[in-house]
Amino acid sequence: MLDFKQGAVVNRRILLRSRPDGEPSAANFQLDKTPLPEVGEGDVLRRTLYLSLDPYMRGRMSDAHSYAAPVEINQPMVGGTVSQIVQSRNPKFAVGDYVAGYDGWMEYGLSDGSDLRALDPTDAPLSYALGVLGMPGLTAYAALLDIGKPKPGETVVVSAAAGAVGSVAGQIAKIKGCHVVGIAGTDAKCRFVTQTLGFDSCINYREDNLADALQAACPRGIDIYFDNVAGRIMEIVLGQINVGARIPLVGLISQYNASKLPPGPNLMPLLAKRAIIQGFLVGDYAARKYAFLADMWGWLQSGQVVSQEQIVDGLENAPEAFLGLFTGQNLGKLLVRVSPDPTAADSLPHAKAA
Amino acid sequence: MLDFKQGAVVNRRILLRSRPDGEPSAANFQLDKTPLPEVGEGDVLRRTLYLSLDPYMRGRMSDAHSYAAPVEINQPMVGGTVSQIVQSRNPKFAVGDYVAGYDGWMEYGLSDGSDLRALDPTDAPLSYALGVLGMPGLTAYAALLDIGKPKPGETVVVSAAAGAVGSVAGQIAKIKGCHVVGIAGTDAKCRFVTQTLGFDSCINYREDNLADALQAACPRGIDIYFDNVAGRIMEIVLGQINVGARIPLVGLISQYNASKLPPGPNLMPLLAKRAIIQGFLVGDYAARKYAFLADMWGWLQSGQVVSQEQIVDGLENAPEAFLGLFTGQNLGKLLVRVSPDPTAADSLPHAKAA
Repeated sequence: MLDFKQGAVVNRRILLRSRPDGEPSAANFQLDKTPLPEVGEGDVLRRTLYLSLDPYMRGRMSDAHSYAAPVEINQPMVGGTVSQIVQSRNPKFAVGDYVAGYDGWMEYGLSDGSDLRALDPTDAPLSYALGVLGMPGLTAYAALLDIGKPKPGETVVVSAAAGAVGSVAGQIAKIKGCHVVGIAGTDAKCRFVTQTLGFDSCINYREDNLADALQAACPRGIDIYFDNVAGRIMEIVLGQINVGARIPLVGLISQYNASKLPPGPNLMPLLAKRAIIQGFLVGDYAARKYAFLADMWGWLQSGQVVSQEQIVDGLENAPEAFLGLFTGQNLGKLLVRVSPDPTAADSLPHAKAA
Repeated sequence: MLDFKQGAVVNRRILLRSRPDGEPSAANFQLDKTPLPEVGEGDVLRRTLYLSLDPYMRGRMSDAHSYAAPVEINQPMVGGTVSQIVQSRNPKFAVGDYVAGYDGWMEYGLSDGSDLRALDPTDAPLSYALGVLGMPGLTAYAALLDIGKPKPGETVVVSAAAGAVGSVAGQIAKIKGCHVVGIAGTDAKCRFVTQTLGFDSCINYREDNLADALQAACPRGIDIYFDNVAGRIMEIVLGQINVGARIPLVGLISQYNASKLPPGPNLMPLLAKRAIIQGFLVGDYAARKYAFLADMWGWLQSGQVVSQEQIVDGLENAPEAFLGLFTGQNLGKLLVRVSPDPTAADSLPHAKAA
């Protein structure tokens, strides 16, 4: 244990000096030295052993496109930490105890201890609290199991497969009996993913033709895509998903550094808001038909639903009418009257007048 | 009733003459005249009264990007129909009966009747079987209720709000007690959507600044986006969704005519495969933490999960290590060792060797 004395030690911190425009650089950060703060009644001072570095931190450097408040300029970068208590005026923590917290990029953290969780170094390496037993592990676990809902024999594709989250997600998918295919950016990573982590195969997206390689690796299509990257890789994977596929959108690292977002639907808000986009084909809902007819019938009778039709006469006019669908020419349901309807005059109920 | 005689009547049909490259045109269709086929034992011949025209037919004109087999060249375009029986050698159908079927773009249809559904013209106008009481109505009903799951007081945005599906979806959302905002392409449509259909408001996306207008119309954010169009409108709506938003992806009409798909993730496969993309933030899964720790602990002990860490020494090296996350420099969990870990040597369990 250090002979720790207030004021004798400087706290080094890394501050956010400026916001990046696109790719961040070392110039966006600044190393700062500051005297340690006073340890007040109830406070716990600890020394950082491990600082976690995670892609989400890129979002905190910006003042846009994120789901949490940005780091203020000239304030320390945020981040998860594992620390050892060096001074305590809080009966819950003794000098020498190990804790997990969220002190950020700094050598010493101070708080009343309510943000700390005790760690026992005989349970597991302390650093695991920031990885496989911490936030990245829980991310892999919950996103795969609760959103992906893997079933034995299904095919699971994991992007950023050699990363902190992907490496765990794929291993859990193997435990659940799935065929697991990783995507990573170097051959060395791919070897690691298959040989060390035990994925069934791994595709180097920088080298291989991703679409062809995926097809070869996923002969029965893709049931779950555990997505850490979004962008082009998602696009290609989507082309090979099976009916009822589940895609936990866990990260969009391919676009975190974009100063101008790529065109097309940006799915970042989906992650930030934990929202669902679900494809719909009416053919799947045949079982709903009777409930639908009963409800709709009542709504038409009560006038709560109005039916609006636009009727074009003559089969020969069908092509032109059809083309108008794509240029906004129709109002309500577009129909062609191919032959006269002998019942049209006396049928009920009719649309309310516009 | 027609005095209907075999051979005396010609069946006019509209065939797919060629596949469009991008925007379809009249030249992709061909009007064709053919003698009526023989009405065999068990067969039912009917005369088309109404032909439904729907955006999905654009997909059938192509041999790619769709979820159903394409129409073959020189074959009739497919489509839903309402017809009247003109000749029957099937005891289930009498001449004069009305039926709904899927005869396609033609004046007379023939089959054994197994594809037909009887219609009673005193129940509702026959044409409703192709609209509010048919496929577009069921689409609006099931996609809104089963995927959107509207709750009273929530805000629902509907694109293509004046169309066959959108017009019904928004009315159902009103019945369910939601605040309903339509998006349409002309002021006349917007007036129809609010005045006739009873939506709370409607935005003309060609005239208004869509983002500003949405913000004004949806002061509490957007809980459900009933999407018929995808593309730019989806992009803007996504920017204003609430936590836990649901987005039934029912159509992508903005891109059906694209000869080259726009860049960015094309969400067509999501619709075709009825798949789910769901955004994930680990903070929502705190309740899963104990199950996670128990499982992961066991998996680490059994060696079924390997923890891989990459540890960089010294806080001053944190920025460079962090930047490496975006250029694929790390393997597994990236950590900074800020101070020496006194427990590192004797901790358990360790990663399997690579």
